[in-house]
Amino acid sequence: MDLEPAVLDFWFDFASTYSYVGAMQIEELCRAAGVPIRWKPFLLGPIFARQGLRDSPFNVYPRRGAYMWRDLERLCHKHGFPWRQPTRFPRSSTLPARVACLIADEPWCGDFVRRIFVANFGEDREIGELPVVAKILEELGKPSELIGTALDESHRGLLRTNTAQADALELFGAPNCIVNGEIFWGEEALADAVEWARRPSA
Amino acid sequence: MDLEPAVLDFWFDFASTYSYVGAMQIEELCRAAGVPIRWKPFLLGPIFARQGLRDSPFNVYPRRGAYMWRDLERLCHKHGFPWRQPTRFPRSSTLPARVACLIADEPWCGDFVRRIFVANFGEDREIGELPVVAKILEELGKPSELIGTALDESHRGLLRTNTAQADALELFGAPNCIVNGEIFWGEEALADAVEWARRPSA
Repeated sequence: MDLEPAVLDFWFDFASTYSYVGAMQIEELCRAAGVPIRWKPFLLGPIFARQGLRDSPFNVYPRRGAYMWRDLERLCHKHGFPWRQPTRFPRSSTLPARVACLIADEPWCGDFVRRIFVANFGEDREIGELPVVAKILEELGKPSELIGTALDESHRGLLRTNTAQADALELFGAPNCIVNGEIFWGEEALADAVEWARRPSA
Repeated sequence: MDLEPAVLDFWFDFASTYSYVGAMQIEELCRAAGVPIRWKPFLLGPIFARQGLRDSPFNVYPRRGAYMWRDLERLCHKHGFPWRQPTRFPRSSTLPARVACLIADEPWCGDFVRRIFVANFGEDREIGELPVVAKILEELGKPSELIGTALDESHRGLLRTNTAQADALELFGAPNCIVNGEIFWGEEALADAVEWARRPSA
């Protein structure tokens, strides 16, 4: 019997609204519970396409979308997270996702992730554009050359691999916490996922 | 300023899995918070059709469906609710919904609602069939003649009205708690909805 908490993989897309409110909470929840976290950026586009969706379900189903925008506003107000409904949705998240893949094991990855999310959903900035990502790296005291490295042919495969793995895991949305193969989807499942990581496993 | 808690309308379909776990909790949550509850049975079928869906989204999107079944099992285990994955999904819920409309204002409506839900998702019984509903009424010490009354032309309109109202409210799924026009969708939003009912309103 293993009494060490299991690792929690946090699968997210920077374009995803509920990934935003999830990403703002998950590292602190894990820290408080002594659960190690791994950041797993991926792209929802190919995952939606697999299900026959050519766009975010929030755009395909307008009632669902209208509810999501109101819900996000409420959730951000409740948690005290910055919120400004983006003028474009979903935004391309490929560039910051490539950077996040490159730095996924760095201790400051969580800071980068949250800054990008706030830029998208709290400040209505174009997170798919290079100057925005460079500025955020600079604010974190990190070299913007990391972007070049992330776009490098030798590193581009990281995001493709993550997205292929997300597909193999049969993910259908984001965020997801995965613990010992158990999938917890959505912002509402964060606490249950962290709890799961603390269950004694065989 | 009104310091009385607002009424919480609980909109549900007996065919809906998350309505089940919501219905098992909502009356007790409301009671503990001093929030009055109103039961609002409706049919999801016409609501899904409005969005171009010919079946439950859990059947239309198999990955979403597979996740839901696992999630329901986990949620029921966590809360200690009976759970047996039904051999038919979704089941016709029209008959028990008509009865629930008829008795919506009775103090035992919650008991009836929970029993029907447990029959569907804890016991794999055909809740759309008359003997099953009659048995449950009998177990509650209520006359099975209520079924006849509910099917009466003078009462059939109740369910149609609720479903039309759900459509006018732009509902897209279930369960929903509605408080002062504010919609809270899903089992995960029950606590926030009850909290909302206790906010001082203008």
